[in-house]
Amino acid sequence: MTATLLTGIGELTTNADAADPTATIADAALVVEDGRIAWTGAAADAPAADASLDLGGRAVVPGFVDSHTHLVFAGDRADEFEARMTGAAYAAGGIRRTVAATRAASDGGLRSRLAQLVAELHASGTTTFEVKTGYDLTVAGEERLARLAREVTDEVTFLGAHVVPAEFAGDRDAYVDLVCGAMLTAVAPHARWVDVFCEEGAFTAAEGERILRAGTDAGLGIRVHGNQLGAGPGVRLAVRLGAASVDHCTHLTDDDVAALAASDTVATLLPGVEFSTRQPYPDARRLLDAGATVALASDCNPGSSFTSSMPLMIALAVREMGMTVGEAVWAATAGGARALRRDDVGALAPGMRADLVVLTAPSRRHLAYRPGVPLVHAVYAGGRRLS
Amino acid sequence: MTATLLTGIGELTTNADAADPTATIADAALVVEDGRIAWTGAAADAPAADASLDLGGRAVVPGFVDSHTHLVFAGDRADEFEARMTGAAYAAGGIRRTVAATRAASDGGLRSRLAQLVAELHASGTTTFEVKTGYDLTVAGEERLARLAREVTDEVTFLGAHVVPAEFAGDRDAYVDLVCGAMLTAVAPHARWVDVFCEEGAFTAAEGERILRAGTDAGLGIRVHGNQLGAGPGVRLAVRLGAASVDHCTHLTDDDVAALAASDTVATLLPGVEFSTRQPYPDARRLLDAGATVALASDCNPGSSFTSSMPLMIALAVREMGMTVGEAVWAATAGGARALRRDDVGALAPGMRADLVVLTAPSRRHLAYRPGVPLVHAVYAGGRRLS
Repeated sequence: MTATLLTGIGELTTNADAADPTATIADAALVVEDGRIAWTGAAADAPAADASLDLGGRAVVPGFVDSHTHLVFAGDRADEFEARMTGAAYAAGGIRRTVAATRAASDGGLRSRLAQLVAELHASGTTTFEVKTGYDLTVAGEERLARLAREVTDEVTFLGAHVVPAEFAGDRDAYVDLVCGAMLTAVAPHARWVDVFCEEGAFTAAEGERILRAGTDAGLGIRVHGNQLGAGPGVRLAVRLGAASVDHCTHLTDDDVAALAASDTVATLLPGVEFSTRQPYPDARRLLDAGATVALASDCNPGSSFTSSMPLMIALAVREMGMTVGEAVWAATAGGARALRRDDVGALAPGMRADLVVLTAPSRRHLAYRPGVPLVHAVYAGGRRLS
Repeated sequence: MTATLLTGIGELTTNADAADPTATIADAALVVEDGRIAWTGAAADAPAADASLDLGGRAVVPGFVDSHTHLVFAGDRADEFEARMTGAAYAAGGIRRTVAATRAASDGGLRSRLAQLVAELHASGTTTFEVKTGYDLTVAGEERLARLAREVTDEVTFLGAHVVPAEFAGDRDAYVDLVCGAMLTAVAPHARWVDVFCEEGAFTAAEGERILRAGTDAGLGIRVHGNQLGAGPGVRLAVRLGAASVDHCTHLTDDDVAALAASDTVATLLPGVEFSTRQPYPDARRLLDAGATVALASDCNPGSSFTSSMPLMIALAVREMGMTVGEAVWAATAGGARALRRDDVGALAPGMRADLVVLTAPSRRHLAYRPGVPLVHAVYAGGRRLS
C-alpha cells in the first residue's frame, strides 16, 4: 500500500466534523492510502507519506453524490423544452416520447449515450450517482435498462412506475400488477432501489404503496418522486414507508415539512427541474430550519432537467433556495450519500473512499460565485484520477 | 489559400439571413478560406474544397461576442458574494476593494490572471471580447490596465469613471477633471472606447457627459453603464450622445424603452449580474417587442458577476428574460457585434471572420436546455482552432 499526501489545499471540506458539519479547514492536507482517506487536517500537522502532490492553494471538496438521475434513455426533447420556455406547460406525459425512443434504441446505442453522460458527470465532479429505469416500461425493456445502468453504477433504481404506458392507458390496474409482478422480478436482481412517480398524471398514493411494498418484499430500498407539481401525497407516503429519500419536494404543506423533519427520509431537491420547467424553486431554508435533511441532485433526464451539473445545482440552491454555500455543498455530497444510505462516500473521513474534487478556485464558494464556469481541476474516485 | 469544408453540421446558425435573422439551416456545411467564411448553405449544395471535416451532426453557431467584461483585476470578492447571498445588499463601493488589490499587483500577476480568464472565455466559446479598465483609477495605473488589456483584445474600454476612488472622496470634481485630462490622455492610445458607470453611488449624468464628451474628443467611441440599480439617467444619456451600447438596462421607464427602440444604441443585458446580486432580471421581451436591439454579455468581474459563461447568459435569458433560444443566441453573437460596432464578427457570412463554435449537441437549443453543462466541442477563431 502506498500513501499519497495531497498538500497545499487552500480550503478543505470534509463533512466530517460532527459539531460543525459545514466547517472547512484552511491550509489543509489529506492522505490517501489504498483508495481510501487515511488522514485529513492542517498541512502543518500532516504525517509523512510515500508520495506527495501540492495542489497550489486550490480548494478540495468531496466528490459530488448525485442521488437522482435518469441517465439511460435515447433521443432528446429539446423541442418540448423550447415550447415550454415560450409558454407551454410541463406535463408528465412527455415521458412517453422518451419511452418510444428508448424502446427503439439498440443496446449499443444506449450504452454509448450512457457512457457520454457518465463522462460528463465525472468531468463536473460527480463520483457517485444513482440511475433509474423507467423509459421502457415493458418487462424485458426495464430489465435491459437496469442491466445497462448496473454496468456503470451500483445505485440502480427500478422505476417501472414512471408513467402508465400508452398501451395500458385503459387498464391502469393491469400495469400496476405487471410492475409489482413480472417486471419487478426481472429487474430486482440488477437494482438496489424501487421508486414511484407519485404525482397527478402519474401514480396515486395507493398505487405507489402497492408497488413500493412489493419492492420492499423483493429486497429493495424505497425512494419516491413526490410533491413536484403540487402538494400531493408523495412526501407522506415516503415518510410512512420509511423511504430513504423523497425527491422534488417543491410543494410542501407544513405537515409535510414536520413529517420530514421527524423522519430519516431525506428531502432531495432537484433545482434543475425548476430551472428547466420555469417553476418556483423549492424552499430549502424552510426544510433546513425545521430540521429536515436536505440533498441536492440533478435529476438529469431529457424531459424536465437535462443537466448533469452538480455545481449548477449548488449555485441555484444558493441563489434561489435560501441555502448557504456550506449547506449546498453538504447537500450535494453528504446529503446525497444520506439519500442513498451510503456511509463510504459524501465525506472525507478516515476509512471513506478517496472520492474528491480539486477545484480551479481557492474556495468552495466559487461553485456559486462563478456560475456556469467549469471549476473542476481534477477528480479522484477511490484515489484514482478520473478527470 | 486553402479552402476547408466543414460538413455534417446538424444545425447551422449564420445570423446572415436579413429576412429571418434567427433562422437555422439543417444538414448544413460551410467553407473557410484564409481565416474567413467563404460559403455557407445546405451540405448537399456545398462546393468542392481542398480539405473537409465532418462534424457528425453537431450544431455550429458563431463565436460568442462578449461585449462587456472587466477582466483585468487582482483578488476576488467571494466573501462579499457569500454575504450578499445571506442578505447583504450589493453596493458599488465594493469596487474599491478590487482597486486596492489591483494596484498592489505586479504586471506579471495581472497578466497571468488575465491569461487564465481569456483561456476560460475561449473554452466556453467566446471568440471576441471587450475588456474595461477601471480597477486602478490613477493615471499610470489605468494606462497599465489598458496596455495589458490591449495585449489580449482590440476592444479596450477606458473606464476611469468606474467609481470615485477613496483618495478623491472629498473632491469628486477633481477626480472627474483627472479622468477627462491626464488619465484620458494616457489611456486613449490603447483604447477604442470610453465608458462611465452612471448610477447612484458612482457618477451623475452631468459628470458622465463631461467624461464621455472628452472621450469622444480623444477619438473614442461611447459606452455607458446605466439603469442597473434604478431607473436612472444612463439610458437617456447614452442615447442622446449616440453611444454604441448602454449596458445593464435592468430598470427602464417606458420612455427609456422608446428611446432605445428609436436609436442605434444597443441595449446590452448582463444577466450574470442579476444572478449574482439576486436582483430581478431585465425584461428582454419588452425591449425586443419595442424594436430595440438587444445584446447579451457576461460583465465578468469579481464583484457583481464573476462568470464568463456566455452559454449560461443564453440559458438565463431564455429562463428568466423572455427571450427565445434564437433571440438569445443572436444577442450573444450578432448583438454583441452590434454593441461593438463590428461587422466582421457575430455572423457567419461570406467575408466575415471564421469565428465559430462547434457544439457537443445537435442544436443550439441545448445551450439553454442543458444549463451548466459545457457544450463546446471545438472553437475556431479566424479559422484556427482555439479550444
